Amino acid sequence: MLRSHTCGELSSKNLNETVTLCGWVQKSRDLGGMTFIDLRDRYGITQLVFNMEESAELCEAARKLGREFVIKATGKVIERSNKNNKIPTGDIEISISDLEILNSSKVTPFIIEDDTDGGDELRAKYRYLDLRRNVVRKNLELRHKMGQETRKYMDAQNFIEVETPVLIKSTPEGARDFVVPSRMNQSEFYALPQSPQTFKQLLMISGFDRYFQIVKCFRDEDLRADRQPEFTQIDCEMSFVTQEDILNMFEGLAKHLFQSVKGVEIIDFPRMTYADAMKFYGSDKPDTRFDMKFVELNSIVKGKEFKVFDDAEIVIGINANNCASYTRKQIDELTDFIKRPQIGATGLIYLRYNEDGSLKSSVDKFYSEEELKNWAIAFDAKPGDLILVLAGNTDKTRKALSELRLEMGNRMGLRNKNVFAPLWVLDFPLLEWDENANRYHAMHHPFTSPKPEDIALLKTNPGLVRANAYDMVINGTEIGGGSIRIHNKALQAEMFELLGFSKEEAQKQFGFLMDAFEYGAPPHGGIAFGFDRWCSLFAELDSIRDVIAFPKNNAGRDVMIDSPSSISQEQLKELGINVNAK
Amino acid sequence: MLRSHTCGELSSKNLNETVTLCGWVQKSRDLGGMTFIDLRDRYGITQLVFNMEESAELCEAARKLGREFVIKATGKVIERSNKNNKIPTGDIEISISDLEILNSSKVTPFIIEDDTDGGDELRAKYRYLDLRRNVVRKNLELRHKMGQETRKYMDAQNFIEVETPVLIKSTPEGARDFVVPSRMNQSEFYALPQSPQTFKQLLMISGFDRYFQIVKCFRDEDLRADRQPEFTQIDCEMSFVTQEDILNMFEGLAKHLFQSVKGVEIIDFPRMTYADAMKFYGSDKPDTRFDMKFVELNSIVKGKEFKVFDDAEIVIGINANNCASYTRKQIDELTDFIKRPQIGATGLIYLRYNEDGSLKSSVDKFYSEEELKNWAIAFDAKPGDLILVLAGNTDKTRKALSELRLEMGNRMGLRNKNVFAPLWVLDFPLLEWDENANRYHAMHHPFTSPKPEDIALLKTNPGLVRANAYDMVINGTEIGGGSIRIHNKALQAEMFELLGFSKEEAQKQFGFLMDAFEYGAPPHGGIAFGFDRWCSLFAELDSIRDVIAFPKNNAGRDVMIDSPSSISQEQLKELGINVNAK
Repeated sequence: MLRSHTCGELSSKNLNETVTLCGWVQKSRDLGGMTFIDLRDRYGITQLVFNMEESAELCEAARKLGREFVIKATGKVIERSNKNNKIPTGDIEISISDLEILNSSKVTPFIIEDDTDGGDELRAKYRYLDLRRNVVRKNLELRHKMGQETRKYMDAQNFIEVETPVLIKSTPEGARDFVVPSRMNQSEFYALPQSPQTFKQLLMISGFDRYFQIVKCFRDEDLRADRQPEFTQIDCEMSFVTQEDILNMFEGLAKHLFQSVKGVEIIDFPRMTYADAMKFYGSDKPDTRFDMKFVELNSIVKGKEFKVFDDAEIVIGINANNCASYTRKQIDELTDFIKRPQIGATGLIYLRYNEDGSLKSSVDKFYSEEELKNWAIAFDAKPGDLILVLAGNTDKTRKALSELRLEMGNRMGLRNKNVFAPLWVLDFPLLEWDENANRYHAMHHPFTSPKPEDIALLKTNPGLVRANAYDMVINGTEIGGGSIRIHNKALQAEMFELLGFSKEEAQKQFGFLMDAFEYGAPPHGGIAFGFDRWCSLFAELDSIRDVIAFPKNNAGRDVMIDSPSSISQEQLKELGINVNAK
Repeated sequence: MLRSHTCGELSSKNLNETVTLCGWVQKSRDLGGMTFIDLRDRYGITQLVFNMEESAELCEAARKLGREFVIKATGKVIERSNKNNKIPTGDIEISISDLEILNSSKVTPFIIEDDTDGGDELRAKYRYLDLRRNVVRKNLELRHKMGQETRKYMDAQNFIEVETPVLIKSTPEGARDFVVPSRMNQSEFYALPQSPQTFKQLLMISGFDRYFQIVKCFRDEDLRADRQPEFTQIDCEMSFVTQEDILNMFEGLAKHLFQSVKGVEIIDFPRMTYADAMKFYGSDKPDTRFDMKFVELNSIVKGKEFKVFDDAEIVIGINANNCASYTRKQIDELTDFIKRPQIGATGLIYLRYNEDGSLKSSVDKFYSEEELKNWAIAFDAKPGDLILVLAGNTDKTRKALSELRLEMGNRMGLRNKNVFAPLWVLDFPLLEWDENANRYHAMHHPFTSPKPEDIALLKTNPGLVRANAYDMVINGTEIGGGSIRIHNKALQAEMFELLGFSKEEAQKQFGFLMDAFEYGAPPHGGIAFGFDRWCSLFAELDSIRDVIAFPKNNAGRDVMIDSPSSISQEQLKELGINVNAK
């Protein structure tokens, strides 16, 4: 190594040792007789000192070093007069006797410090410089640790990591597949996997018993905020299991990661049905860091001549503790919030439970104080609370109230990023009705098994069938989801039929899996976790982009390498494809 | 779990316990009053016994179970009268009191046993059944262990695993890139990485210091035997290192893997220059499990009127110990071997050093016994040895003799798969001349740094410049290769120029890297290992295909899922591409 130590390891234990360090010039201070340099590497910062009296030449050389120059410096570890207890190396400095410039640096387009002056676009273009900042690199160190600890746990539980292919086959539902033209099989295409689903099921049929993989997956969708065309999953599958076994196994993984990566001990891992999650939180991924459950008011508020409530399918609300003091302006803000097109509620009704015990609502015209008292009782409200109520169509109103609940959680400081509330959501519906396509879609995917007790409903009322499917939710974010799979050819065929596949389509696309079911497929199930999402949650970030070394922007571009890009005519010709004229 | 134990863990310690096992029916034997079933899962085989006297119904049910049926069986662990000491569970059997068929199986297209009757094509089509065979699954278990142990070692050495993007940019040398049309950026393409080379260098510039990744890479080349369009690398890079540091670090990795995965302790890790490897073995990846070094005879054999030798640039041979007894027929076989078009030698000269001390050669006409004696001395031959000699153009003759040496190694049983001889090959040439393109190619890649002492030759005699490049070779297989990289913009530009890039091309393709060199790039270097190859070597297999769960065939097809395949017109339209008429 060009160095004897890193910039993060020297302390007063090393006094008088002669050491060689390599790193980047973080900053330098010239005090006339002395020049100080903060030398940085991945491991820390060490102060170098150059003394005019000892070597004017060296000191002059040091003065000329610009920020981000890469140097190699040799000297003696000495005690620092002005100790810095903020950094581990703060007790010492290195009195330099030899200096070599390994590389110079132009002035960087933004400052390489935790608080930088660089905007998003500039930092994306110079991602390699942005990654040089401690705050960014630390996210990727955490990601590394997450990966290591995941593998440690899975290995200890007898899971085998198996790499499944990246060049696979496009599926009919695969409008969102990235495809790869085959040169050797002209006019044919591979597809990149949206998940290794069928392969992991085949591995169960092969008797692998317990499989996992930390694996790149791909989805060519219009990128909403915080989606990436390539993303990483922790993909898992087990044989001879019930849903309960899977919940326990991966609750174990979550607890292990919380403990080993975050130092947080998770005791409770509550479970909630999908039906309850929708009823009490209006969401299949409730943020349970705070309570503020929905309360339904239909039986209390209807029939009092208030048309909005009378016409509504549902009247529901939340109780914001200690918010009775909200001003008119604040309530107007909330009204504007829920009226935004992406939420789409039509109006907000409030009830203030004043500190003096009086009740004041925006619908006083229709409800007496006595009646409003019943509202307060329904919400278990206390003086000082603010009740917020929405009304309308059930699904839409729940969704809007869910957004309002999260907004109130934010405003009330109930959503701290360093507090963690994990949750299983269970008993998802097997199917959801697609209004546009006028047919059912699989809520998870076509391989999810219905609950045995609901199978009869498949023929009579498919929309009511519940699945053996589960999501892991942490702080309102879906971290993972999975299901017990179908392992029976006849049931799988019935499922494809329900989803509108013709027999031929089903055979063409998934024939290999249906065939495999006939050669001794074991009962099996699994789960897949969004690794990027989980890392970003642990890193206490808002975006997955910050836990990805080289992310793409919202247009799917890597602006650093300028990709995608055009390719040559010869290359197109060799692949047997043409680009359409624009 | 549906089971209480696996099929591999019960022993006489568990006598009288009531247990439930799940697995596949490996075989059954019906002895009239008793029926025996071998139940198999990933962990082993356990014998189930059904007794006609105890339950006729159960015994009848057991008799009907076909091979590969999936069952769940409950019973009591009892001592086996007829113990089987070949399997860990051989002391016990389970007296079954309850049986459930979890899934039936059609008759499999080939027998699921270590020795199967299935041909290659059939097993490829039903890969999920082939994977059910112990001998195949064990290869993937070994691969899992290789991955785990690699990560363990790298993590302990402070390397951070960073995922680099899969959707990157096509390079001009990228005729072998797989490309991915971008729907959002019509008429533009991503490329799949042939390696994460530029990204790992950027990570060094970012100060990551030590990076690794076990990562899928892609190359669209006509598939020679034992190549796959997608393959896996252990990709590594370090900053502030010399070549020596890298050799030591990854010698350490190799030793760790040998120890932890194979239980083999590697003491010696010899090093050899490229020049010596070519001189003594005619190959840059010599199999050093056996010696049989080349001996050059030019000074001994020339000028004796034998035109073949006189006209030859080089006359070289090997000494096959104790092979003097080779028959005419055997020597004819060797002659045919080296005359095959893929080897292309024109003839083989031999010299038998008979047990009686007499010498007999195929060129007795030209050389006296006295002269032949000198040959024997040059080869340090003893009575009983057989000397095999080729002559001609240096490169071609060395290559042919290398093949002959390996063939003799095979014939003489010197290439046992469970003997391991690792080796570093060093000091590769930086460039190689491409006769067809009439220009230099980078022998490793354009980012490899020349040896500092050879830099002056870049301008005068580039072909003589040696690189700071190294390959790890085990048993004649190149397991990995790498180099110290260029970290200086001017030198990188000079290198691109030598390789025939125009300034514009270099800027367009690698501008981001050249720019990055200007912002404090540290000295760095690295290595990449062929993970599939290494696994197959440790699994003592001939092909990498057997350590890949779902490999493609020589035409790049996955015959199990039938991929690549055509995609719909709508999909093509949405991607903005057309398929050329055939």
